Amino acid sequence: MPPSDIQQKTRDHLWLHFTNHANLTGGGEVPVITRAEGAHFWDDRGKKFLDGLSGLFAVNAGHGRPELAEAAARQLRELDYFPIWGSVHPRAAELAEALAERAPGDLNRVFFTNSGSESVETAWKLAKQYFAAIGQPGRHKVISRDLAYHGTTHGALSITSLPPLRAPFEPLVPSGHRVPTTDAYRAPGHLAGDEEALGRWAADRIAEAIEFEGPETVAAIFLEPVQNSGAAIPPPRGYFERVREIADRYGVLLVADEVITAFGRIGDFFAINRFGVVPDIITGAKGLTSGYVPAGATIAGDRLFEPFTAEENTFLHGLTFAGHPVAAAVGLETIALFEREKLNERVRENESRFRSTLERLRDLPIVGDVRGAGYFWGVVLAKDADTRERFAPEEQRRLLHELLGPALREAGLHARLDERGDPAVLLAPPTIAGQPEFDFIEQVLRSALSEAWQKL
Amino acid sequence: MPPSDIQQKTRDHLWLHFTNHANLTGGGEVPVITRAEGAHFWDDRGKKFLDGLSGLFAVNAGHGRPELAEAAARQLRELDYFPIWGSVHPRAAELAEALAERAPGDLNRVFFTNSGSESVETAWKLAKQYFAAIGQPGRHKVISRDLAYHGTTHGALSITSLPPLRAPFEPLVPSGHRVPTTDAYRAPGHLAGDEEALGRWAADRIAEAIEFEGPETVAAIFLEPVQNSGAAIPPPRGYFERVREIADRYGVLLVADEVITAFGRIGDFFAINRFGVVPDIITGAKGLTSGYVPAGATIAGDRLFEPFTAEENTFLHGLTFAGHPVAAAVGLETIALFEREKLNERVRENESRFRSTLERLRDLPIVGDVRGAGYFWGVVLAKDADTRERFAPEEQRRLLHELLGPALREAGLHARLDERGDPAVLLAPPTIAGQPEFDFIEQVLRSALSEAWQKL
Repeated sequence: MPPSDIQQKTRDHLWLHFTNHANLTGGGEVPVITRAEGAHFWDDRGKKFLDGLSGLFAVNAGHGRPELAEAAARQLRELDYFPIWGSVHPRAAELAEALAERAPGDLNRVFFTNSGSESVETAWKLAKQYFAAIGQPGRHKVISRDLAYHGTTHGALSITSLPPLRAPFEPLVPSGHRVPTTDAYRAPGHLAGDEEALGRWAADRIAEAIEFEGPETVAAIFLEPVQNSGAAIPPPRGYFERVREIADRYGVLLVADEVITAFGRIGDFFAINRFGVVPDIITGAKGLTSGYVPAGATIAGDRLFEPFTAEENTFLHGLTFAGHPVAAAVGLETIALFEREKLNERVRENESRFRSTLERLRDLPIVGDVRGAGYFWGVVLAKDADTRERFAPEEQRRLLHELLGPALREAGLHARLDERGDPAVLLAPPTIAGQPEFDFIEQVLRSALSEAWQKL
Repeated sequence: MPPSDIQQKTRDHLWLHFTNHANLTGGGEVPVITRAEGAHFWDDRGKKFLDGLSGLFAVNAGHGRPELAEAAARQLRELDYFPIWGSVHPRAAELAEALAERAPGDLNRVFFTNSGSESVETAWKLAKQYFAAIGQPGRHKVISRDLAYHGTTHGALSITSLPPLRAPFEPLVPSGHRVPTTDAYRAPGHLAGDEEALGRWAADRIAEAIEFEGPETVAAIFLEPVQNSGAAIPPPRGYFERVREIADRYGVLLVADEVITAFGRIGDFFAINRFGVVPDIITGAKGLTSGYVPAGATIAGDRLFEPFTAEENTFLHGLTFAGHPVAAAVGLETIALFEREKLNERVRENESRFRSTLERLRDLPIVGDVRGAGYFWGVVLAKDADTRERFAPEEQRRLLHELLGPALREAGLHARLDERGDPAVLLAPPTIAGQPEFDFIEQVLRSALSEAWQKL
């Protein structure tokens, strides 16, 4: 099929996600991606790109894995689809066990979904019905952090802390409440440079929000181990331990939203394992199948399942495709592949190399911060790296959309230009990437950022 | 793997959907489905079942289609995953075009999702942002029908008209309003036996609800062409035409929720094509890939897309896996297969045979109604078919869970026992089924219903 046909079909019939269509409608073009292999993909003109974002934080094991294609085809020939509503099929049970074995603490119970949004929806519904079942039906509210993205369905959107994403869809579920995040780069003055004090302060703001709302009305705290939106914000030392204490003190559930961070991204099947606490629920998706088949999972602790072993309590929730045989087969093979190739170990070994390669960019006057963990990093941009002065809105728009976007595409680097907090370049390559790819990223960014700086 | 291992893994680690776990926890077992082919599947003991429900209204082209397995494997080898956020890949554009060509009227614009719930969420968000974009930001409310199931994520659940499914999760999105459905079997006395009068009355109740709420606050009416929950309720003659008029009169969008009815179920790619109106939005999922890969789609009319061709309007919605290359490849092959084998034509040709085969059951004193369309039928049960007397709650529970459920399993028929409205057996076999399968269904039901009747 000639490239122009795909452009035309897209222009006429597709509604692209989070995409302004004015340019396409006006005759402009959109990148057409046709092939992928390892840490790279190619467009319809044969141009090669480094996949510095694993598609969209999904293809953690890398592209073009024949084992995963074969697992899907084998499963389709055996059992294409059957629901796990009142019955089961082998792959769903096997993947549930495999996830439970790798999840922290007593998180042994797996409710499958089809997406990250559905995993978050499920965790919230589970928290609400759990509290109703144990005689605390007033607990429905959720605390989440400034700038955090938890999904786009109405429930997940109500937890998401990005007001512009919510505004056109109000009223939403009236149960979302916000607290500050743990952005050390923008920490209040009295906390600057003191990581543990920042962690204490940020955790205590959660306690404060629970007190404000009334503990008997709060169901859960949703936190990403490393916060994506806002540019790869890691937790300060001591933060998660203190949040865990606060959750216990008020009887509130702690949900680790690991849609982005699980399945290798931070060097473990679950990132929270690296931060020393056991949450009550983990939500996952993206990397579960290395992105090869849509799938998600919400993993709950034994105590949350316990009330639902009684005749009178059925979790009133279900999704047709969840636990899909093909998704489960590919999920199992993804885990096998991670262990065979020691990909989590690889990420932990390479973490400081990736960081120090990106840290070299700090000599550029536009680079304000480099932060993250594992294979998930944010290069934060500032008008003045020394004073942390922000760009004016029009300047920032020009920087990201007119200068950096085209420059990275031209150089063959797929990264995310984030503008939800400070402007930043987000990087999350497949776990098979190594020093050559880190160097490529650093070189492309050095050149693109230097040039943009001069043109601004 | 020995069967008992799967039972144990399920018992220890899976959270089954819409399933009470007391029996499993207590050492009971759950059916383990291991293999499927054509209109049948097998459990781990080698027992064969007729798939009278297409898995869960999904496997419309039948199980074990080598073309679909091959389409998935081929796509995985070429391009495993890439998002359609600001870029595209060939299969997504091709499937969007194929859907637009088969959708009614000017429904030419496809927003992909991963599930039916996400398709409904998307339609609602689209309606709200569309109205905001054209200067009517007050329109956020939705009208739906008694007993209707539109999904389980918070937004879709807020539209769902089954109070017990919503209760544990309140507060939900405060925008859902209900009207009666078009159940001729339970129509108010003055409308009994007059299909067109029932249709007028039910449509006018929508107008009334819009007036009650204030037209300038109502965004959309969500209706299934044939309503699933409540037991395959078809639209009375003239109903959809009148609803269309009412929607136009008040400037409200008409959404045809075709998650169950599209892709062959009623003998067309979109069931609404058989009922003579053009909706503003269609929501689909399940049969889009014949269930082989999780996928959904929300298809909108040109006038809804139009405001989003402007620089200032971006639909603020997206889902990582939506438009997945593998789902799109399998969706394209499903459409090709339907057309090669004329499966829609087959359903329309067989519709009256299926109906008349089931109608034979009306000689049983427990069968109150037989209704539906295409390959989607409900056999409604009553304590007294003549007076339409209902069963007492405990009697109904015994009938469905202790008598019919085990009897159908024993006889090897997978059907759905619905208890959301009148108790009913729902049937929705793959489109490849024909008279031998209709006869098998009739014989199994005749025997199971007769025996249950005697034991009650």
